[in-house]
Amino acid sequence: MMIIMKQGYSQEEFDSVMKRLEEAGLNGHPIIGVEKTVIGVVGQIYPEMADDLETMPGVSDTVPISAPYKLSSREFKPEDTVVRVGDVEIGAGKTIFIAGPCAVESEEQIMTTARAVKAAGAHILRGGAFKPRTSPYSFRGLEVEGLKLLAQAREETGLPIDTEVMSVRDVDVVAKYADILQIGARNAQNFILLEEAGRTGKPVLLKRGLASTIEDWLLAAEYILNMGNKNVMLCERGIRTFENATRNTFDINAIALIKQISHLPVIADPSHGTGKWSLVTPVALAAIAAGADGIIVEVHPNPDHAKSDGAQSLNPERFRELVRQVDVVGGALGRPLAPSMAKAGA
Amino acid sequence: MMIIMKQGYSQEEFDSVMKRLEEAGLNGHPIIGVEKTVIGVVGQIYPEMADDLETMPGVSDTVPISAPYKLSSREFKPEDTVVRVGDVEIGAGKTIFIAGPCAVESEEQIMTTARAVKAAGAHILRGGAFKPRTSPYSFRGLEVEGLKLLAQAREETGLPIDTEVMSVRDVDVVAKYADILQIGARNAQNFILLEEAGRTGKPVLLKRGLASTIEDWLLAAEYILNMGNKNVMLCERGIRTFENATRNTFDINAIALIKQISHLPVIADPSHGTGKWSLVTPVALAAIAAGADGIIVEVHPNPDHAKSDGAQSLNPERFRELVRQVDVVGGALGRPLAPSMAKAGA
Amino acid sequence: MMIIMKQGYSQEEFDSVMKRLEEAGLNGHPIIGVEKTVIGVVGQIYPEMADDLETMPGVSDTVPISAPYKLSSREFKPEDTVVRVGDVEIGAGKTIFIAGPCAVESEEQIMTTARAVKAAGAHILRGGAFKPRTSPYSFRGLEVEGLKLLAQAREETGLPIDTEVMSVRDVDVVAKYADILQIGARNAQNFILLEEAGRTGKPVLLKRGLASTIEDWLLAAEYILNMGNKNVMLCERGIRTFENATRNTFDINAIALIKQISHLPVIADPSHGTGKWSLVTPVALAAIAAGADGIIVEVHPNPDHAKSDGAQSLNPERFRELVRQVDVVGGALGRPLAPSMAKAGA
Amino acid sequence: MMIIMKQGYSQEEFDSVMKRLEEAGLNGHPIIGVEKTVIGVVGQIYPEMADDLETMPGVSDTVPISAPYKLSSREFKPEDTVVRVGDVEIGAGKTIFIAGPCAVESEEQIMTTARAVKAAGAHILRGGAFKPRTSPYSFRGLEVEGLKLLAQAREETGLPIDTEVMSVRDVDVVAKYADILQIGARNAQNFILLEEAGRTGKPVLLKRGLASTIEDWLLAAEYILNMGNKNVMLCERGIRTFENATRNTFDINAIALIKQISHLPVIADPSHGTGKWSLVTPVALAAIAAGADGIIVEVHPNPDHAKSDGAQSLNPERFRELVRQVDVVGGALGRPLAPSMAKAGA
Repeated sequence: MMIIMKQGYSQEEFDSVMKRLEEAGLNGHPIIGVEKTVIGVVGQIYPEMADDLETMPGVSDTVPISAPYKLSSREFKPEDTVVRVGDVEIGAGKTIFIAGPCAVESEEQIMTTARAVKAAGAHILRGGAFKPRTSPYSFRGLEVEGLKLLAQAREETGLPIDTEVMSVRDVDVVAKYADILQIGARNAQNFILLEEAGRTGKPVLLKRGLASTIEDWLLAAEYILNMGNKNVMLCERGIRTFENATRNTFDINAIALIKQISHLPVIADPSHGTGKWSLVTPVALAAIAAGADGIIVEVHPNPDHAKSDGAQSLNPERFRELVRQVDVVGGALGRPLAPSMAKAGA
Repeated sequence: MMIIMKQGYSQEEFDSVMKRLEEAGLNGHPIIGVEKTVIGVVGQIYPEMADDLETMPGVSDTVPISAPYKLSSREFKPEDTVVRVGDVEIGAGKTIFIAGPCAVESEEQIMTTARAVKAAGAHILRGGAFKPRTSPYSFRGLEVEGLKLLAQAREETGLPIDTEVMSVRDVDVVAKYADILQIGARNAQNFILLEEAGRTGKPVLLKRGLASTIEDWLLAAEYILNMGNKNVMLCERGIRTFENATRNTFDINAIALIKQISHLPVIADPSHGTGKWSLVTPVALAAIAAGADGIIVEVHPNPDHAKSDGAQSLNPERFRELVRQVDVVGGALGRPLAPSMAKAGA
Repeated sequence: MMIIMKQGYSQEEFDSVMKRLEEAGLNGHPIIGVEKTVIGVVGQIYPEMADDLETMPGVSDTVPISAPYKLSSREFKPEDTVVRVGDVEIGAGKTIFIAGPCAVESEEQIMTTARAVKAAGAHILRGGAFKPRTSPYSFRGLEVEGLKLLAQAREETGLPIDTEVMSVRDVDVVAKYADILQIGARNAQNFILLEEAGRTGKPVLLKRGLASTIEDWLLAAEYILNMGNKNVMLCERGIRTFENATRNTFDINAIALIKQISHLPVIADPSHGTGKWSLVTPVALAAIAAGADGIIVEVHPNPDHAKSDGAQSLNPERFRELVRQVDVVGGALGRPLAPSMAKAGA
Repeated sequence: MMIIMKQGYSQEEFDSVMKRLEEAGLNGHPIIGVEKTVIGVVGQIYPEMADDLETMPGVSDTVPISAPYKLSSREFKPEDTVVRVGDVEIGAGKTIFIAGPCAVESEEQIMTTARAVKAAGAHILRGGAFKPRTSPYSFRGLEVEGLKLLAQAREETGLPIDTEVMSVRDVDVVAKYADILQIGARNAQNFILLEEAGRTGKPVLLKRGLASTIEDWLLAAEYILNMGNKNVMLCERGIRTFENATRNTFDINAIALIKQISHLPVIADPSHGTGKWSLVTPVALAAIAAGADGIIVEVHPNPDHAKSDGAQSLNPERFRELVRQVDVVGGALGRPLAPSMAKAGA
């Protein structure tokens, strides 16, 4: 950390800062510049230290030097993390697909979708049983009944299941049925939920919050990793900006940057990232080109009758075409589709 | 809702849309314009309807007409809601203060602060027992021990207590000790927590999320109101924008607008809204001038030794001066400070 | 500036950085920390130096220490700048009003408005002759004819004139008629226009850009000040954020912060800052409470027939009430309205 | 346009609105809903009409139906626009590269770079002679001398030249030397400059403003198109958001969306879009995958000695590798590199 002193600070103020560092077991290295005096601080700094120092008389500002996340950083672990879900490897250099409806609506809907996405080459089935909705008046999911239908779909198709957990109260029941616990954007800084999801040891798909910086997001992952759970996947799903022609602004930079600074797999969600089905394919291709390890996408057998997110869902035919194109782009870059059970079974 | 048809839509597509509306028990009124055809829809529209319609062939877009929130709207309830907490009335035309440390750190710290803020004219004591922290490595509060210390401070000073509840798992214990349940910005769309907080019937102070639009925020309030709990207060604490000279961007427009469109009391949090103690007073005065019903502010007996948020905390002396200035501005506008126990006891 | 080295940098890389600093006549002070090595740099640093250094092998990042603006800073000039426009003093501790229509539309419209705002207590008349419009199909002002009408209004009422200059091509003609040259938000980083406006020596009202940070904004002021023109006023008019219930997000923090870090007067524009006439009064009061030196506001004799910005314009009666309330709040804080000619003449 | 009436509007207010529409030669179609009354408006609506109507008593809001841009829309012109610059076709289904230094610094620098980018396969040379800089104290370009050096580089290499014009004052001289006039992000709503650039008839590369919505951007293009100049190319270069780990947030959604709603070619600028050379290649590949017609990229023979934007510039070797990878991804999608003179000459 660097401490920047105010212009015209007094010797007494300077001495207080140095004494405070000493009390905390830290070494301060003053640099007297033409305009400013700066104190470089060496040693183990606890996060609140900066706040404290900034309120001391004579101190203008503090500047952190080290990133605040550790376990998610490539400096901590240089080699890629590979998350295994059943037979599927995520982050191992091949592209994977997680596909399915926004919400589980009925046995017929989820079974039809599961068969269709499997046939098209998906590796994992997604579907919401507990649904976070901006309005209390919207459809909120079949809850445990939905989890059971997902398990039934897994039994028939062999596809592992990714589903959202919205509350610490539901962690156990969701973990009982799901292969991947998904943490939604609106819970991206629900720190107790992050820890409880971490505690299960199950793979966690952590969506980025609407207002989370990349640093916030990696710190959220840190809550899960810190519980000893190494199976964390990051999911870019767009951030909130002034642009309103699309539902969110998909942050393609974040995908490229995180692959450089973190060892965790990155999954792209072009359905929420754009909010329009017509943009899902180009943005999915872009995400793969930027380095994403996989795509999570909403597929509905009949999007215009979906109970939620119909406008951003693909029908099975369009999904098939998406998988084909992703394989072309991923293949050209040495990251083709991972083998799927559909092909394995063929 | 208005349905906007694409240019060059077919008669068959138009007929499908009209049929779909009929199936849903809605009346469609087509308006054939020079460039566009629009269908006005009359009747009870469920929230997903727009999504569904947007995916139909020939449909370009839909535009909502009514705001999606009801119970929090002045159209639903024109007169101001007054929330009563002990002897304090919030939203009744007088200005109130909620003050105390970011986190309860020790008996001495909370008792000293409680006495100081009471003496300065505060109406309610704030203090965090459960602390949401961006990093898992930060101080996270004394938890139940902190609640007990708050209760002890209430016993001595008579000040009601506002404290944050971070998880459904803690709702019961927090409700047992607290007079106001505070929902933090990072839980502003933790919908299950909103419902559980609503269920307690206790007054709820609902902070705005970092990326919540005013509409999102009122819909979040709707989750609490919808449980039959009418004691909801909205707390503006700044939103996340590109400006990084301040911790957040305090949205003064939101205070003025919400007082016009909603009947709920609005509290301003200039501590988080600015992140700098030197900005707390001018922004608090601004909030009162714009119509806020009260101020929540971080006060610490010794800000540069605070375990969290020291940089944005006032010391008791500065707090006293803030109260004085708020009384001047509020008084000039006919909204002076509500009587406090300090004065009552004097 | 601080240079932060990458983990695992080589001695050779370190030596190159030190050599590079030496070449530039700067002294580097290395601090070897547990996790990171940092080099403090002392001396006159040109702005591109950081960019250059960041591309050197072994360098992770650079962190500036000094703010990049000088002339606009309180460190450079501690006492408040007072801008004189005719008999009006801006920044001298009294509150001033600049009022008038968005655009000059006709002789009758501007003369009626000028008389009305003078009668209500305004100090300066505003009115657009050259209008920047998002769409080329919108009304774009009466241009030179509009300037002449403004001059005529000044002659009759004695009110000095503030009007926008949109292009270097028009600087001379606008400077010939106007008392204050206004630079609009969309030209806030039109650097050549800033210099040319500076060169005239006339007072400049510099609006903040929609995406300008406070630092960007002060650097834009620096372009004008750097031409030897000290008569710069900053105008907060809202920034662009995700919130779309209001036209812009008025940044009240910016007003409070700039009064602390800069000596320049700050004017608030609640008309553009909110986009809704019903929010103009509460946000104007807030701006004064936060420390603004004055208010610029759109007034139209008949807002619902205005050729531009009708939705955010006050009619004369509402303007009169605004002036009254601002005087109450400003007066309570020791910053009442400056004497106006209306009163002087009374 | 749809006019939404307030709840509880009076018959008189309704009649005034209908009369006002009639005066403007428009037909109003009222739809009386359960909660709201809406008036659909048919006819030629001028842009200010909405503003006017919103201020009328009884009116709650207006909602536009048609997009405000015309000439840039696919509804106006369904087939792709192809811009020809010398022998290069932009927007014709093959991928093109515009490459060169941020600023022209010297004869040696620009000639070396021009040869290097030509050899690597670039189609057009970029280089700044007039440089917009956030701070007045930064290097601001060689101006006319820089234009002459660019012309010299064109003479030797045969590469057409793209360079920025910052001010109406320089339009003639820049148009005399340049093959493409570039409008920078900070001038994206400098409407007079847009018109003057349009008037030259030269191809214009229009960068998106830091805070421009897609609609704002297309309306800016409209200023150029409206002068009869059809040679407009749009350049996505990132928008300003809360994320600060990258210089800007590259809006990949915008590329995909604009290819659907507009016929104009879209060029991606990953140098400014990310601000870090290590992110340039993945984001360039992403842009091509999303549908961009070409890439503009900063290349410097010696980035760590560049006078501006060194941190985001590629050296020639890295540029060669970028071209190769873009050809792989573009080729896989049927949009390989356009033939370059380097290859033609081979």
